[in-house]
Parts: sequence; C-alpha cells; structure tokens
Amino acid sequence: MIDKPIPDIVVGRLPTYLRALQHMTLEGRQVTSSQEMGERLGISAAQIRKDLSQFGEFGKQGTGYNIQYLADQLQQILKVDQVWDMAVVGAGDIGNALATYQGFANRGFRVIMIFDNDKSKVGHKIGPFTVQDSASMVDEIRKARIQVAMIAVPAPNAQDAADKLVEAHVRAILNYAPINISVPTGVYVQYVDPVTHLQHMTYYL
Amino acid sequence: MIDKPIPDIVVGRLPTYLRALQHMTLEGRQVTSSQEMGERLGISAAQIRKDLSQFGEFGKQGTGYNIQYLADQLQQILKVDQVWDMAVVGAGDIGNALATYQGFANRGFRVIMIFDNDKSKVGHKIGPFTVQDSASMVDEIRKARIQVAMIAVPAPNAQDAADKLVEAHVRAILNYAPINISVPTGVYVQYVDPVTHLQHMTYYL
Repeated sequence: MIDKPIPDIVVGRLPTYLRALQHMTLEGRQVTSSQEMGERLGISAAQIRKDLSQFGEFGKQGTGYNIQYLADQLQQILKVDQVWDMAVVGAGDIGNALATYQGFANRGFRVIMIFDNDKSKVGHKIGPFTVQDSASMVDEIRKARIQVAMIAVPAPNAQDAADKLVEAHVRAILNYAPINISVPTGVYVQYVDPVTHLQHMTYYL
Repeated sequence: MIDKPIPDIVVGRLPTYLRALQHMTLEGRQVTSSQEMGERLGISAAQIRKDLSQFGEFGKQGTGYNIQYLADQLQQILKVDQVWDMAVVGAGDIGNALATYQGFANRGFRVIMIFDNDKSKVGHKIGPFTVQDSASMVDEIRKARIQVAMIAVPAPNAQDAADKLVEAHVRAILNYAPINISVPTGVYVQYVDPVTHLQHMTYYL
C-alpha cells in the first residue's frame, strides 16, 4: 500500500487544531467534539473530522475526542513532541521580540542564539542571549545542528540571510522580512508579513 | 448580471502579488509576466493568470503586465490606494515592534495610537507615540474613526481586547495573541502566530 501525501492545506490547519486543544487542556477540559472545535476556530465540524481522519482514527462516534490524546497525537504528527532549537537572524525590534517571545514554550520550539551584522549590536544582551556576529553564523548554526531559523532582517538582506542559513543546513525558515526568498528543494519557508494579512482584510471593508 | 464573489483564497494571494510588483518597481522594472511572478513567488503562472483574470483584463497576450498599472489596480482592489490608520493594543515587545515597524509605509497602513492596561507602561513613549490607558481605548478609537487594529496582548486578554475593538467599531483585527477570538459577522480577523507556521514546517522535517 502506498500512502498518499496529505494535502499541504490540511497540514497547515493542524497547528490551529493543536493550539485549540492545548487551550482546552489549560481550561481543565478532557473531552471535545469536532462541533466545539469548529465553533472555536470558525471552521466546519465536517472539515475538522475530514482533516483528522487523514491521519487516523482519533475519536469515537458519539463520544467525541479525548483532548489530551488527540493533542499528543497531533504533537507527534507535527513533530513537536520534541523541542526544536532555533536561531534568530536580525537583532532589531522584531528579532528582539522573537528572542524573548514567551509563546514558544511548550509548543515545540526555543530560541538559542541570535545574530546581527551590525557591529553596534554584536555583544549586546537580548534577554538571556548575547547578540553574535553574522560572520560566525554558518559555523555556529552548524555546530549546534540547528534546523529551524527565523529571519528578521530588512528586506534587502533577507536573501543573503537565507543563503547563509541554507549553507548552515537549516531546513525550515520563518521569514519576517516582507520579501519572497528562494531556497533549494527540501528547505521550507513560511512568511509572516502583517501587511499581507491587513490587505487581505481591507479588501472586504 | 450578478457578480460572483471572489474566493477568499484568491483574495489572500493578491497582497503577495502586489508585494512582488512593488519590489520590481523598486528594481526599476516596468514589465513582467505571470511566469516571472510565479518564479519569484513559488506559484504557477497559470494560477496567477487565473487569479488576476477574476478581477479584469490586466495584461496583453504576449506582452505581459505593465508593473505600475497592475500594482495600481491591485492597490485599488485591496483598498490600499489610501492609508488606513491603525491602533495597537498591547505595548509589550510585539506591540513595540509593531508601533515602530517601518514596513507599513507605502503599503496602505500607519499606526497612530497604542494602548496598554499596565499603568507602568501608560505615558511612556514608543517611537513617536505615548502609550495610552486601555480604559480610554473605545473612546479614542471611535473618535479617530479607526477601523483597523492589531492585538498584541497575552492570550488570556485577547478576547477582551477584541470585544473593546468591536465596541469601538473596528472592522479588521490582526491578532498576534496565540488564541482564536470571536467577533461578530462583518468584523474580520487574521492571525499571526509564529508557532503555527513553524509547526507547519516541522511536519515535513
């Protein structure tokens, strides 16, 4: 039997499901349903059932989902039942916010180093980290075997940062610079650009 | 003739097209093609042509797209041929980065006020702004007729912030708190949560 690859759009919804389940756990809840999850997320219950069914049989008809069990399964599927070390490239306001962001904890990620090419920033402390010179980035990231990084440099510097990360064997890049970057096959890029989200909404106003 | 609504997923791609065109303009370019745009964006040329054709006839077979003209049209369609004033709720690290973010300029948005409910932050300067007390938020936002806001408060406070924004007649909310929020019909929400993007990528590692 050959496994069909799961559509990327389905994969992209799993983190939101996991997040909702983790909030329910914090609320002391133990069981939920696709209906309830759908209401929280603004997604239809049928869509959630269909998405989850691609990965296995997680609930029983009529009794719903065990929240802890389903969360554990999703963490395994998304490979965040481990903690991924991350590097931040760029020690400006966004890099600063990322290096000290509390929201990574318990969700599978932690920042362990931050780089900048601005000599006036190198050596300065950001939270528990000392900003390192970008010149040592490839070596340091390789040595630490880091596979996940975030780019928070100005747009004109983003491709160069991405090239260095690829050279250092990083395989997943979250890019905060408002520009598309090119990476080889097998390296994944996601984008965070507030303006694209805002423009998506103003269309409807 | 009744206009069919454009699928939201198509609308969501337009800001990325506009961004690519604006970068080309900065590079001094005048004409592009769906092929070239596709290569920059990692989207098929056919998809781009199909998306754009939903809004009109922007290029000529064989001669491609006039970059400035297409960018102007997309700005009109996305309603960013004007500047939208924005409020930021939350003056922590993320709120700070948003209030001083240079990337809004020339893309249709500007921050004009920032709020926090922490009295130790109220009155402090962030860039050109003085942090205002959240208690005055509904009044101030209404007075300024602000329709677009960004939430950058801890997750447990996000729904309350959203409720106040809705009360103040805000219609588009970009939520940086890692939690889903409920808003009435006619109010739009988009989410920025780095962890959901990261988890989407680790699935493939």
